Amino acid sequence: MDTLSRLERTIAERRRADPSQSYVATLHAKGLPQIARKLGEEGVEAAIATLSGSEAELTGEAADILFHLLVALDARDIPFAEVLAELDRREGTSGLEEKAGRTQ
Amino acid sequence: MDTLSRLERTIAERRRADPSQSYVATLHAKGLPQIARKLGEEGVEAAIATLSGSEAELTGEAADILFHLLVALDARDIPFAEVLAELDRREGTSGLEEKAGRTQ
Amino acid sequence: MDTLSRLERTIAERRRADPSQSYVATLHAKGLPQIARKLGEEGVEAAIATLSGSEAELTGEAADILFHLLVALDARDIPFAEVLAELDRREGTSGLEEKAGRTQ
Amino acid sequence: MDTLSRLERTIAERRRADPSQSYVATLHAKGLPQIARKLGEEGVEAAIATLSGSEAELTGEAADILFHLLVALDARDIPFAEVLAELDRREGTSGLEEKAGRTQ
Repeated sequence: MDTLSRLERTIAERRRADPSQSYVATLHAKGLPQIARKLGEEGVEAAIATLSGSEAELTGEAADILFHLLVALDARDIPFAEVLAELDRREGTSGLEEKAGRTQ
Repeated sequence: MDTLSRLERTIAERRRADPSQSYVATLHAKGLPQIARKLGEEGVEAAIATLSGSEAELTGEAADILFHLLVALDARDIPFAEVLAELDRREGTSGLEEKAGRTQ
Repeated sequence: MDTLSRLERTIAERRRADPSQSYVATLHAKGLPQIARKLGEEGVEAAIATLSGSEAELTGEAADILFHLLVALDARDIPFAEVLAELDRREGTSGLEEKAGRTQ
Repeated sequence: MDTLSRLERTIAERRRADPSQSYVATLHAKGLPQIARKLGEEGVEAAIATLSGSEAELTGEAADILFHLLVALDARDIPFAEVLAELDRREGTSGLEEKAGRTQ
């Protein structure tokens, strides 16, 4: 089982854990606005690291953004597989980038 | 070959394409600050969609953030596999979330 | 009458204008999530400009962030004077920065 | 002297203070990427508060964003008056919003 699927499962399991034991449970205890806020902040941090961070810093920020993206998807009950299917769909139709470009 | 690996390869191929034909090449032509900016903006959009978007909107924003994260990693010559290895490391040592939690 | 007070008044007036004639009315027609999203995106753009933009670019992004902050405050019916009063309060008690620092 | 001018002066004074005594000096000691990152994060927090925060929370986030915007401008040696002049210029030429709209 690959890394992101395993992480998705772990996050779903911890969702209703004791907040004193689990960071995921802590986020859920604070509510959806806090989950959204963390995701947005990780986006900012990854952007800054892209521009001025070391390779290790950007790798760490990219891991953080994936983690918080999976928490947000889980909180909204959206399987990560649906996001992958959306990426496949974009590539399948008219070339992935062109589709992505149109959303800008 | 899975979706994200395939997307990573596509993005690397398009990096030096004609900007009039490729969104990835357009981003590169504008420079790293534009790549960083798009990643940060997608983080904001995913955050807003987490809080108030439909399931389809959040799925689309999650796809956008993955796409632009892969563009940023490629621009800095960091293989996506390194980010997955970082997530594995966090889980391996002391439980993924605890490690993630410490970075907050 | 100073710039920000005048801008606050202009924004309040345009709120219910014809969206085809007014950018503020367009934002309102799209709803609060769009207003929030623009504010967050301007924060990202100002951050990138701080790091790698010219003086003119950062000046422009700073103007954009002020404009969209005033739109967001108006949409929530919060007078800009309340934000200034909050800044005065922070300075009055224990030195502005220390108070700001505690919120980090 | 008004709130924002006074705050601008305070921030400029604290810039070279002892980091153990001043939040502004702490930001400067960490460097421009940290100043940019905080500005971007405050943009995210203000966006989330616009959408789901109380009036007091949005007021506080708006104060935070103004504070960190002034820190970023000071770090790049741009007087706040230049940002206000830019807002005046936009209004003077073709109506503020139309000009702002064109930058979107």
